[in-house]
Amino acid sequence: MKNKRIGRQTLAFPQPPRIISSAAIVGDIEGQGPLGAYFDQVLEDDTWGEASWEKAERKMFEQTVRRALQKIDLESSDLDCLLGGDLLNQIISANFAARELKTPFLGLYGACSTMAESLLLGSILIDGGYADRVACAATSHFCTAERQFRNPLEMGGQTTPTAQRTVTGAGSTILADNGYGGKALYGNVQVTAGTIGRVIDLGITDSNNMGAAMAPAAADTLCTHLSDTGRSIRDYDLIVTGDLGRFGSEMFLELCSDHGIDAQRRHLDCGNLIFSAAQKVDCGGSGCGCSACVLNSYLLGRLEQGELRRIFFIATGALMSTTSGMQSDSIPGIAHGVVLERR
Amino acid sequence: MKNKRIGRQTLAFPQPPRIISSAAIVGDIEGQGPLGAYFDQVLEDDTWGEASWEKAERKMFEQTVRRALQKIDLESSDLDCLLGGDLLNQIISANFAARELKTPFLGLYGACSTMAESLLLGSILIDGGYADRVACAATSHFCTAERQFRNPLEMGGQTTPTAQRTVTGAGSTILADNGYGGKALYGNVQVTAGTIGRVIDLGITDSNNMGAAMAPAAADTLCTHLSDTGRSIRDYDLIVTGDLGRFGSEMFLELCSDHGIDAQRRHLDCGNLIFSAAQKVDCGGSGCGCSACVLNSYLLGRLEQGELRRIFFIATGALMSTTSGMQSDSIPGIAHGVVLERR
Repeated sequence: MKNKRIGRQTLAFPQPPRIISSAAIVGDIEGQGPLGAYFDQVLEDDTWGEASWEKAERKMFEQTVRRALQKIDLESSDLDCLLGGDLLNQIISANFAARELKTPFLGLYGACSTMAESLLLGSILIDGGYADRVACAATSHFCTAERQFRNPLEMGGQTTPTAQRTVTGAGSTILADNGYGGKALYGNVQVTAGTIGRVIDLGITDSNNMGAAMAPAAADTLCTHLSDTGRSIRDYDLIVTGDLGRFGSEMFLELCSDHGIDAQRRHLDCGNLIFSAAQKVDCGGSGCGCSACVLNSYLLGRLEQGELRRIFFIATGALMSTTSGMQSDSIPGIAHGVVLERR
Repeated sequence: MKNKRIGRQTLAFPQPPRIISSAAIVGDIEGQGPLGAYFDQVLEDDTWGEASWEKAERKMFEQTVRRALQKIDLESSDLDCLLGGDLLNQIISANFAARELKTPFLGLYGACSTMAESLLLGSILIDGGYADRVACAATSHFCTAERQFRNPLEMGGQTTPTAQRTVTGAGSTILADNGYGGKALYGNVQVTAGTIGRVIDLGITDSNNMGAAMAPAAADTLCTHLSDTGRSIRDYDLIVTGDLGRFGSEMFLELCSDHGIDAQRRHLDCGNLIFSAAQKVDCGGSGCGCSACVLNSYLLGRLEQGELRRIFFIATGALMSTTSGMQSDSIPGIAHGVVLERR
């Protein structure tokens, strides 16, 4: 047992699951960003022909799983399990998509940390021998998130300088056990370890400052991971955070620095990657679709091409709620991390 | 690997986790019901001295975990992981409780199926060798659920005959690996298998008829479990569903019967057990606290006393959402099951 658990929060996978496929679908603004060419599909309009944004969001979740499967000639019936979630109340996007996909489904809620949480649990299912093939997915949509968490879009409210734009996008990863011999999109990219996050709360109450709410959790997960594994930043080509954005990234690096960890040179944030400075998105992208679609296109691509050998992917979630917010509660954060390696 | 996965949706645990403790805290109406004497604590008022029902709900979640640990002289720092959720948007009850408990946390959303989903994943963590001790928990609160899903309580609205009353309660289970040698509340009660549910939707749209929305999922999970394992109803002393209530239970038994399974004599439903016919609760109890507190008091007690040897516990979730409801969507259901045995 000892080799599967390292330290307080980290798990190692002796039979590491292989990433055999992935897909990412994004909205038009995301398609115009610097990573536009990496995505499998860029929607022309954010309803995707559906009667509501919510229905478009669940369609993105469903289609990103189907797309990843299609690339390797599999169908949803070839999956042993689907794990995932989204930001909407009762994770309706994931649930309604799971209904269409007809697979056994484990619903997760980790806010924007969902992509890493699903990879962590999916990897446990495979490494532990409970499943041969699983899909992990997450989605978010700018329009559904704004009306649920902040204000109706129709109001035309202005954003504050620390605000981030919820990414319209969905990403999915297909994991398989090491006995898989079928078609694969990636040579030998594996999930070799994961660190389960804790809920951390430094008292942020501004729903337009998600980066600050999540940065402490990201720093906690990184510091714990390095301490658990006895590794240093230099053992990773990149430390990738989910959606801290510009301001949250600064805070993250400062908090790491307080713990004697200089992550600056090896840190990238999906929220900073997905939009360019010219796009009017304030502090960058957010939403669980942000890290999901950047990971499942650009990052996995760079791993496959050998530009990156080992990265620590930390998806970061702000556990924001209008109910607890109206009751004067702060916004706690959580961050789960997975180690992705090309071997 | 083959011995860990049986059929399409069922997992077997060759190193089955032991249930070493549990606790249940309920509201006053639940305390007046037939199981009142089994619960660890019955609240005198449903705010438990907090400023809001939501804060009381998260206190129940936190305290039920602490209580289960106290019974066996452990603390939250002895846990490798906490898994759980609740019905509130962004699972704020579980998230805020996890902040206080300071344990690594995996947030789940399975509506009222959460107790079984957490036991399933918690058992995988232990059987797979990823954790030595975990806590699985779920909570719900009548007052927070009514105002989130239906109408403000202050309106004094009347219920329909098929309505169920969301249970105010929380339940927690502490699981340990078979090397655990410390104090335990239960001799040798184990989680030996689990069946991951699928999202099933027969088109129910009435948020006051949760039983009907969940019954098809419960029947699907039971039929799949029996088919996966090659067992029959007679291999179980009880098939316990989460919170189908009176009407949902009838529908469940009919759907099972359609599949040639006569579950009638061995079926109990937590939603029917928790309230008496004299209590004005229409079709019985619901909410993820319902099955959580009945399992973690009455059912585990009967297993421990040898009155039951093996039960299949199917927690049932109605994936209801005000957003999807207002967009004319139906209410899909999901049901996860775990096999609990005294050995």
